[in-house]
Amino acid sequence: MYGLIGKMRPKPGERDALIAILLEGVGAMSGCLSYIVARDTGEADAIWITEVWDSEASHKASLQLPAVQAAIAKARPILAGFDSHVVTQPVGGHGLAGS
Amino acid sequence: MYGLIGKMRPKPGERDALIAILLEGVGAMSGCLSYIVARDTGEADAIWITEVWDSEASHKASLQLPAVQAAIAKARPILAGFDSHVVTQPVGGHGLAGS
Repeated sequence: MYGLIGKMRPKPGERDALIAILLEGVGAMSGCLSYIVARDTGEADAIWITEVWDSEASHKASLQLPAVQAAIAKARPILAGFDSHVVTQPVGGHGLAGS
Repeated sequence: MYGLIGKMRPKPGERDALIAILLEGVGAMSGCLSYIVARDTGEADAIWITEVWDSEASHKASLQLPAVQAAIAKARPILAGFDSHVVTQPVGGHGLAGS
């Protein structure tokens, strides 16, 4: 499995708008076992995205989907930056789609 | 929902042993929507745990379960520390148990 843990920083006041974009079309990505969007409780504008994919290839392929390309185009103007981005190797647990 | 994103550092050479302890009994926790254990790909000994619960109360209650208490007791001797621990407010996504 292939995992990502990322912290995004929207432009001020744009957190909920960015969350809505991130959640659009989340169910339709082949090989996506988990994709969870969360607000940081300590920083008013920070968003965490945690992802699990069956492979790195599936993640890369998802970035080419028209719906994902459209979401990236909508998100870019309200995204200030990424505070952290970690690649992980998930090994198991509870709540993985299909398990 | 209530979320946790934590990075744990086992004692050197104990990562797989700690992962095995963390994965024991993961399915039996009431209110647990997602609990995923992953290796860090950049740091040889680091482990990430990402959790989603229906409420903070469910998370707190889980810590009192006999199986969880036993896992904590087994993990403590091989755990060197926590590198980060973030509380989040998950708002949605894919792969949440029961969704």
